[in-house]
Amino acid sequence: MNVSALLTSAAINIGVCVLLLSLYSVLRKQPSNLSVYFGRRLHQALPRRHDPPRFERFIPTPSWILKAWETPEEEILAIGGLDAIVFLRIIIFSLRVFSVATFVCVFLVLPVNYYGQEMHHKQIPSESLEVFTIENVKEGSRWLWAHCLALYIITCSACLLLYVEYKNISTMRLEYIKASSPNLSQFTVLVRSIPWSEQKSYSDSVFAFFSKYHGNSYLGHQMVYWCGTIRKLVTDAQKICSGVSSEDFSNKCKHLLNCGFCGGSAKTFRVLSKESESVKDNVFYRDLDATIKEKPLLFKQEVPAAFVFFRTRFAACVAAETLQSSNPMLWVTDFAPEPHDIYWSNLCIPYRQIWIRKIVTLLTTAVLMFLFLIPVTFVQGLTHLEQLQQAFPFLKNILEKKFINQVVTGYLPSVILLLFLLAVPPIMMAFSSVEGSVSRSGRKKSACCKVLYFVIWNVFFVNVLSGSVISQISVFSSPKSIPTQLAKAVPTQASFFMTYIFTSGWAGLSIELIQPLPLIYNLITRHILRRKDEACNWSYSFPYHTEVPRVLLFGHLGFTFSILAPLMLPFLLCYFLFALLVYRNQILNVYITKYEGGGQIWPAVHNCTIFSLVLTQIIGLGVFGLKLSTVGAGFMIPLIILTLLFNEYCRKRFSPI
Amino acid sequence: MNVSALLTSAAINIGVCVLLLSLYSVLRKQPSNLSVYFGRRLHQALPRRHDPPRFERFIPTPSWILKAWETPEEEILAIGGLDAIVFLRIIIFSLRVFSVATFVCVFLVLPVNYYGQEMHHKQIPSESLEVFTIENVKEGSRWLWAHCLALYIITCSACLLLYVEYKNISTMRLEYIKASSPNLSQFTVLVRSIPWSEQKSYSDSVFAFFSKYHGNSYLGHQMVYWCGTIRKLVTDAQKICSGVSSEDFSNKCKHLLNCGFCGGSAKTFRVLSKESESVKDNVFYRDLDATIKEKPLLFKQEVPAAFVFFRTRFAACVAAETLQSSNPMLWVTDFAPEPHDIYWSNLCIPYRQIWIRKIVTLLTTAVLMFLFLIPVTFVQGLTHLEQLQQAFPFLKNILEKKFINQVVTGYLPSVILLLFLLAVPPIMMAFSSVEGSVSRSGRKKSACCKVLYFVIWNVFFVNVLSGSVISQISVFSSPKSIPTQLAKAVPTQASFFMTYIFTSGWAGLSIELIQPLPLIYNLITRHILRRKDEACNWSYSFPYHTEVPRVLLFGHLGFTFSILAPLMLPFLLCYFLFALLVYRNQILNVYITKYEGGGQIWPAVHNCTIFSLVLTQIIGLGVFGLKLSTVGAGFMIPLIILTLLFNEYCRKRFSPI
Repeated sequence: MNVSALLTSAAINIGVCVLLLSLYSVLRKQPSNLSVYFGRRLHQALPRRHDPPRFERFIPTPSWILKAWETPEEEILAIGGLDAIVFLRIIIFSLRVFSVATFVCVFLVLPVNYYGQEMHHKQIPSESLEVFTIENVKEGSRWLWAHCLALYIITCSACLLLYVEYKNISTMRLEYIKASSPNLSQFTVLVRSIPWSEQKSYSDSVFAFFSKYHGNSYLGHQMVYWCGTIRKLVTDAQKICSGVSSEDFSNKCKHLLNCGFCGGSAKTFRVLSKESESVKDNVFYRDLDATIKEKPLLFKQEVPAAFVFFRTRFAACVAAETLQSSNPMLWVTDFAPEPHDIYWSNLCIPYRQIWIRKIVTLLTTAVLMFLFLIPVTFVQGLTHLEQLQQAFPFLKNILEKKFINQVVTGYLPSVILLLFLLAVPPIMMAFSSVEGSVSRSGRKKSACCKVLYFVIWNVFFVNVLSGSVISQISVFSSPKSIPTQLAKAVPTQASFFMTYIFTSGWAGLSIELIQPLPLIYNLITRHILRRKDEACNWSYSFPYHTEVPRVLLFGHLGFTFSILAPLMLPFLLCYFLFALLVYRNQILNVYITKYEGGGQIWPAVHNCTIFSLVLTQIIGLGVFGLKLSTVGAGFMIPLIILTLLFNEYCRKRFSPI
Repeated sequence: MNVSALLTSAAINIGVCVLLLSLYSVLRKQPSNLSVYFGRRLHQALPRRHDPPRFERFIPTPSWILKAWETPEEEILAIGGLDAIVFLRIIIFSLRVFSVATFVCVFLVLPVNYYGQEMHHKQIPSESLEVFTIENVKEGSRWLWAHCLALYIITCSACLLLYVEYKNISTMRLEYIKASSPNLSQFTVLVRSIPWSEQKSYSDSVFAFFSKYHGNSYLGHQMVYWCGTIRKLVTDAQKICSGVSSEDFSNKCKHLLNCGFCGGSAKTFRVLSKESESVKDNVFYRDLDATIKEKPLLFKQEVPAAFVFFRTRFAACVAAETLQSSNPMLWVTDFAPEPHDIYWSNLCIPYRQIWIRKIVTLLTTAVLMFLFLIPVTFVQGLTHLEQLQQAFPFLKNILEKKFINQVVTGYLPSVILLLFLLAVPPIMMAFSSVEGSVSRSGRKKSACCKVLYFVIWNVFFVNVLSGSVISQISVFSSPKSIPTQLAKAVPTQASFFMTYIFTSGWAGLSIELIQPLPLIYNLITRHILRRKDEACNWSYSFPYHTEVPRVLLFGHLGFTFSILAPLMLPFLLCYFLFALLVYRNQILNVYITKYEGGGQIWPAVHNCTIFSLVLTQIIGLGVFGLKLSTVGAGFMIPLIILTLLFNEYCRKRFSPI
């Protein structure tokens, strides 16, 4: 890949982005799309914006950018909660670190790479990208100190900024806990694994236990009930009944008839609506109804879990943090999540299963990570055209055309990878549900970590390793040679990851902005199903489990390629700037905040950044080893040790908060 | 090495043991050795035993064995505390497990090994030991299911017994906490890292903080003071003064004069004793004395650590377990150790240093572990006579004699290794002091773990790996081949480890019984320095940090060699039986219990046993792979997974207690 191919790819993507942005600024002005682009405002029933006149609606304007840029942090905190602030802090942190890194690498490392060998330089557009990477520096060069110095500057600034951010965020967390108006969840403790006794019900056990051991501060408790399957069926049936018999339904049927979308006539529905009356009279149904009233316990079974309320926050905190029983698997207490944050169905999982569920999901995640190698290896093959041509000789003619060649090498692989990756977050979310987390925020955090491991392994490592040594996955069988292997492999993949930034980064942000799925859904409901009520929009919360790993992956790419292929950094900086605007806009307008996670995602972010830094340094070690610069390699070792010590210090200093 | 060499080695050791035991039973009857063999009784001023008549004193009797065997567990608990009981439970657990293992392996695995190949068997005494190991089973043999079955039985019985022991010990711990008479330490919390303020002293800060946040339950506090160097010098000087001027000292001098042990005459000492008066009058000394009285703070400096007393156990528990401050590095609270258990000098270490001290000692321990390779590799060379002969040709004549040959291969290596290993526990103890543990029991536990890692690495792994592939230490560079490498290497080292059991195990126990160092010290003080007072005996507590790793190492050897070289197990069983008697006797008679650690060593024992089991299974995997038994190898994998799951379950179920 040469510079012109890179620029082609960049140009395609910038074109796509500009197109999508213009489209967005037009679409958002259409009153019919209000539920797609202003979901939060609709949900909170805020005063409607002034609709622009019909003509202005079709002129793209950048007003939303200004709005997103100007909104102060306090407003975002009020709207999106601490989670949103923490997410934006990740982007701001990346912006700051990579500003420093770009400055250092473009003005110090890039010239060293370019003039690294005495060679005849072609004109820049037809220059190969490899000339700009560290591969162009000759072995034993004295100029390698520039790379070493750059790595030191990047590490120091990253650590400093990490510390500042962690301190800010922990202060914010404490202020949030202190300042929030007395919140029910702060007085409540979730008790699980209440022991079964034949004499007493669970509720009586809880009462006896807490009035004995926490008599002064115990206020009351609320058992968790399990609605059995029959109960659910009954509730569903009742819902359908009321729905079918309502006036509204026949209206809807008329619409359906009008549009002719369904095959049947409106009569089909009317017949059903009358039959529903007869269902009510059915013997079986009436029996069930009676049983519910006679034996409520059959349909509302007590679960060995309860919420216990205390008189003071301190008592609740003490009850949540201390061991309650001599058997640590009984009377397990924990802080109760916020009411909206509780993941009810997981409260019914017996506590004894949870450790085994965690292990099983962990193993399944690992297996999935390795199974995913198959599509990734295929994608990787596309960037090596020669191999593709050997495998599929009939493609040879097509691939020899220059434009198609550039599209295939520059664009297609990352698009395919992107499509495969789209399936991952829902799978991980399902795994996290199975895992048994009792809060939605905990589930999302767990899914976020899983997706993070997944993308870093499958996007970074697999591409890097299979790219250089295709069909040789056993590279990790010799730990000693890992730095050298990585140092050989990483620079060769610079071009792939640059196009990945264009497609997954820039274009991904535009797609995030334009929200294709809700838009299509909205179009269908409005223009085909002809529904008009604005209340039927779907409101959903911010998908931290997909967006945090994405931003962190780009940060990871930035660190690892910083001294190897500094040409990547300016593009990355553009990505982070664009991301800041887009996500601020989305938090302000689109997503609603259903619950407050309290910014507990930051430690994972911190650890990931430290991992990226250390990996960068290990690759640096390998690179200096390959380039026969013992001084450089020697300087890397204290840097690695200092970075790990810094991480350990931060863990001691901040982690328990 | 053949069977007769093994029996020679065993015979030598049994002879040595019998000799030492007879010597012990004679020595313990001498009234002059009372302070060596009945230190605990003397320390606690128990009624003196009836001294046997002069003639009987020189006849060896086994009465102590009966006494040690018959003492009930309650008495040992009262005498040695929970730590002693836990230590004896380790031996009893090993006895039980290896009884099962010996039964299974001797009657099932040993015949399979012996008749594993169709070969002409020599007479048993001249049969090579390799005939009894798994190396004798031919590849693809159908009889390998016996080894697989044996491993399953051993694992299951070990897990079952581990669970029972863990449950017993946790019950004992809980009963100990419940039943112990109200103990000061249970109402006390150790606070460290009290923040410095210019307005208030540390003491005032503690008072203000705890009366604000724990007003209801706070009772009082005691600051920790640091006696400066000058203060120490003054105290030492005062001690010397009083000592020198005392009547006692001149008496002692006369003794010295009598025995003529020292070069100088008694006058030398008398001159000093008169000068000491003039020291008292010295201007400098008087000044110092005055300063101490005027400015006590100069000599008694407050340290940012305090003991805080609470009204109830519960309040103390809550204060110890909850986070006190928004900065987790300030106001660090923890359960206070028992008064005798406190390691005072470590209380003065600033809390900020502790994490870095831990990391540094960890790294230093790792470095020491690897530096120790040098002597071990040398020792290992001795078991390979051919290599030794090649290296030192002049030894050839000597080594060709049969008896010397047997001594060198069978006895010398483990004696040398033993001497080197003697230096390790004091070093690890020093490391653990530097680490910053605030209690003596914590320090001993930490040293115990360090010694354990050390012996398992240096005695087991290094011997196994360097024995088979001398000068190839880079075996761990390929994780995949570890099972195969171990499977190849471990059986070849069976003879070395059998002799190790004789020397370090049997002879080591006899030496433990006879207590050579205190005995020699006692002889010198009595017969050369002519001191007669029995009070001058040295009393010391049980060295758990050397004995626990030793017992666990033998357990580790037992597990790993169980199916590979079953001939080892009967010898090991003898060791554990002997160990039980010896250690019971020592706990009853010799060691005093200065503090109660509460049996917190058991989790480390549990983890070590699980590690041994999993390693055995991994070696089994390698062995079945080498012997081309895919079924056997396939059966190992679920066993490994189940063992790890069992460990995880135990951690959940018992660990927080």
